[in-house]
Amino acid sequence: MVMKLTEMSKEQLSAFKAECEKEYEAYKAKGMKLDMSRGKPGADQLDIAMPMFDVFTNSASMIADDGTDCRNYGMLTGIPDAKKLFGELLGVGTDEIIIGGNSSLSLMYDTVARAVTHGVYGSEKPWGKCEKVKFLCPAPGYDRHFAICETFGIEMITVPMKNDGPDMDMVEKLVAEDEAIKGIWCVPLYSNPDGIVYSDETVRRFANLSPKAKDFRIFWDNAYCVHYLKDAPDRILNILDECKKTGKEDMVFIFASTSKISFPGAGVAVMAGSVNNINQIAALMGIQCISYDKINQLRHVKYFKDMDGIMAHMAKHKAILAPKFNMVLDMLDKEIGELGILEWNKPNGGYFVSVNTLDGCAKRTVQLCKEAGVVLTGAGATFPYGKDPADKNIRIAPTYPPVSELEQAMNIFCISLKLASAEKLLEA
Amino acid sequence: MVMKLTEMSKEQLSAFKAECEKEYEAYKAKGMKLDMSRGKPGADQLDIAMPMFDVFTNSASMIADDGTDCRNYGMLTGIPDAKKLFGELLGVGTDEIIIGGNSSLSLMYDTVARAVTHGVYGSEKPWGKCEKVKFLCPAPGYDRHFAICETFGIEMITVPMKNDGPDMDMVEKLVAEDEAIKGIWCVPLYSNPDGIVYSDETVRRFANLSPKAKDFRIFWDNAYCVHYLKDAPDRILNILDECKKTGKEDMVFIFASTSKISFPGAGVAVMAGSVNNINQIAALMGIQCISYDKINQLRHVKYFKDMDGIMAHMAKHKAILAPKFNMVLDMLDKEIGELGILEWNKPNGGYFVSVNTLDGCAKRTVQLCKEAGVVLTGAGATFPYGKDPADKNIRIAPTYPPVSELEQAMNIFCISLKLASAEKLLEA
Repeated sequence: MVMKLTEMSKEQLSAFKAECEKEYEAYKAKGMKLDMSRGKPGADQLDIAMPMFDVFTNSASMIADDGTDCRNYGMLTGIPDAKKLFGELLGVGTDEIIIGGNSSLSLMYDTVARAVTHGVYGSEKPWGKCEKVKFLCPAPGYDRHFAICETFGIEMITVPMKNDGPDMDMVEKLVAEDEAIKGIWCVPLYSNPDGIVYSDETVRRFANLSPKAKDFRIFWDNAYCVHYLKDAPDRILNILDECKKTGKEDMVFIFASTSKISFPGAGVAVMAGSVNNINQIAALMGIQCISYDKINQLRHVKYFKDMDGIMAHMAKHKAILAPKFNMVLDMLDKEIGELGILEWNKPNGGYFVSVNTLDGCAKRTVQLCKEAGVVLTGAGATFPYGKDPADKNIRIAPTYPPVSELEQAMNIFCISLKLASAEKLLEA
Repeated sequence: MVMKLTEMSKEQLSAFKAECEKEYEAYKAKGMKLDMSRGKPGADQLDIAMPMFDVFTNSASMIADDGTDCRNYGMLTGIPDAKKLFGELLGVGTDEIIIGGNSSLSLMYDTVARAVTHGVYGSEKPWGKCEKVKFLCPAPGYDRHFAICETFGIEMITVPMKNDGPDMDMVEKLVAEDEAIKGIWCVPLYSNPDGIVYSDETVRRFANLSPKAKDFRIFWDNAYCVHYLKDAPDRILNILDECKKTGKEDMVFIFASTSKISFPGAGVAVMAGSVNNINQIAALMGIQCISYDKINQLRHVKYFKDMDGIMAHMAKHKAILAPKFNMVLDMLDKEIGELGILEWNKPNGGYFVSVNTLDGCAKRTVQLCKEAGVVLTGAGATFPYGKDPADKNIRIAPTYPPVSELEQAMNIFCISLKLASAEKLLEA
C-alpha cells in the first residue's frame, strides 16, 4: 500500500523529496533532449501516406470530376471531388463546405479576422467596430485558439470543462446575458487537451443556445474527427444538423483538416456551415485569394477515395499511436499511481493526455522537466492568456517521440512531478 | 493609304459601320465561346512543369537542407532551401524573405489586413483606427489590388501611368502632403496591364520618397519578375537595395510567386522586405498559421534547383507565349493599323496587351465581344472602383487560348472595336 504524499509527515516528505532529488539528478546527468511539447505526428505516421505522392501519372490525371484543370486558376471554394469527400467527413452538403489551404488554423484565424473587419453573416457591424467583443473559452483548451482571440483584443472568458463538454449551464447563461459575447471555441471530439467527447445533450444544448448577440458563432473545431485510439471511433452528433432542427444553422462554423490524417502543413483544411455563412465567407475570401491548392485537394481525393479510405488510413495511425498512449498511461499508473499527486484522463482519441497536478505544481514540474532535457507544452498554455488559475494542468503530447524516447521522457516527467509535489507540500 | 475614322465624313462612317455590322453578325452567327478575360497560362504551359511531381522518391527526399522533415509542422517562414532560391530570385537575403503558401494575392491581402487590425512595423496605431486611409493606385493597374483596398474601405487615388512607371511627380507630391496615404500598389516589371518596365530613375525616386505617413508602404508586386517575351529579360533596379541606400528599407514590401512559373494556385508565393518588416510580420503570421506547405516549397526547389533552372524554365514559357503575343500585335497592325481608333503597347513581357480605344468606346467594345462569344476583362477593371474615367482601356489576355482560338477571338475583337468606334463617332 502506497502512502499518499498529502498524508505524509514533514519528515516522511523530506525523505521522499531527498530520494526524488537523487533520482532526478541521475536523469539530468544523462543530458537528454526530448520534445513532448506539441501534437505532432511521428515520422512513422507520416510514412503511411507516402503513396499519396504517386497518384498523378500525367496531365490528364490532374483534371477534376467537373473537367477543371487543377493546375490552373479557379474554383475558389474547392473542387467538387474534394467537397464530396470532405462533406462526407463532416456530414455536410457540398454547398455547405469550403475546401481551404493547408491549415485549418488559418481558416479559423481568417474567419475571426474577417469578422473583425467585416462582420459575419447577419452582423449589424464589423466586430472591430463593437466597443467590446468577448469569446467563451472552455478550458483547458487549445492555446492557438486563445492566441487568435488575444491578437484581436477579444476578451476571453474561461468556461470549465466537464466530462461531457463545457459547463453548458454557464455557457447558456453567459451568452443569453451578454451581447458582447460573439463566440465560443469548441473541440467537440477528443478535445484538446482533455480528450473529452461532447455528449449528445451537450451538442443539443449548443444547437439550442439563445445568444443575446445576433451574430454569435460557435467555432466548432473538429480537429480530431476521426482520430481514435480504441477499437472503434467515438461519434458525436452532427452540430449543423442539430442547428437546422432548431432553426439556428447560421450559428456554427465547423473546421477540420487532414493535418493529422495526411501531412501537417501539407494537408487539406476545410470549413463548413450554413449556405448563408458559406456564401458570405466565399464572397470575402475571393478578395484574398483566387483559389487554394487544387492539386493537393485532388491528390487527397485520389489517395483516400472515400470515407472508407480515410477510416482504413486512420486505423494505421491508431496502430502506431495507441501503444504510445498506453505507455504514458501505464507509466503514470506505475510511477504515480496512488500517490495522490496527479489526476489524469484516459482518452479514447486525439493527441494528448491531460493531467492535473496538485495546485501550484504544474509550472514547477514543467520547469524541472525542461532542466532535465524534456520539453513539455508550457504550463498554463491550455488556459486563456496562458494563465492556469490553479497552476495544475499539463498537456502531455505522446505522439511525436519514438516509444523508447517516450519512456525516458515519461520517467523524467514522473520524477519531476514527484519532486515538485514534495516541494510544494513541504512549503505548506 | 487607309483613312482614319476620325477624318471620315458622316456618310463614309455610316458606310464603314454598315460593313462592320455585316462582318460582326457573321462572326456572331458562328456562336463561338472564347475566354480572354484573365491572365491564365495555357495547358501547354502547365505541361512544362509536370516533372515537378516526380522529384520525391521516398521519405528521405522530403528532408530540407537543415534536416527539417517537410512533411511535419514547423518552419513558419519557410525552409532554408526555398529562402535561398527565392531570395536569389528577388535579390534579397534569407532573413529578408518569407516563403508563403500558394498565392501572393493572399500574402498581399493578409499584409493589408494585418495593417488594418495591427499596423505595420513602426505604426503608431492600426490603420483601422485611423480616420482615413488612402492608397495611391497607378492605373491602368491590377483589379485585384484595387479590390483589396475597396474591401477594407481604403480610399483609392488614381495616379496615371507613364512609359517608365507611375507619374512620380504626382506620387512624390501626394505622399509628402497627405498623412492618410499609407501605401501604393506597384507592378514594377511588365506592369499589369501595360507591360511597362519601371526605369532606374523611377525606382530610385520610389526609394527616395518622403511620405508624411511614417508607416507608408510601397507594395511592390513583382508578379512578372522573370516573365519575359523577347530575346532577353528586362531588368529593374532592386528596390530593397535602393531603399537601403536612402535608409528607408522599411518602406517596401515585395511580393512574387511561381503562379505563372509553375502552377497557378499550386505554386509558391513569397514576400520580402527589411528584417524589421519580416520580423513584425512573422510574429503576427504565427498566430494565423503554423507553417505553409513545405512539401510544395521543397518540390519547387528540387525541380528548379537554382536561378538558372528558373530562367531555363521561363524560356520554355516564352517559346509558347511569344507567338501568341505576336499574333495579337500582328492582328492589331493588320486590322486596326492606321484607322486612328486604337493605341496599344508592345510589351516585352508579362501577361497582357493593354489597349486604349477612342474615349468612350471600351465598354461598348467589350460588350460587343461578349455578345459574339468572346469574354474580355471587364472594361474599367484596370481602374480603381472599376471606373475608367475615359472608358478607353481594355486588357487583352492572350495567354490562355490556343493560337487558333486566339486568332478567332482577335478577329471578333477587331471588328467589335471598329463597330464601337464608328458608332461613337456617328453619335458626335
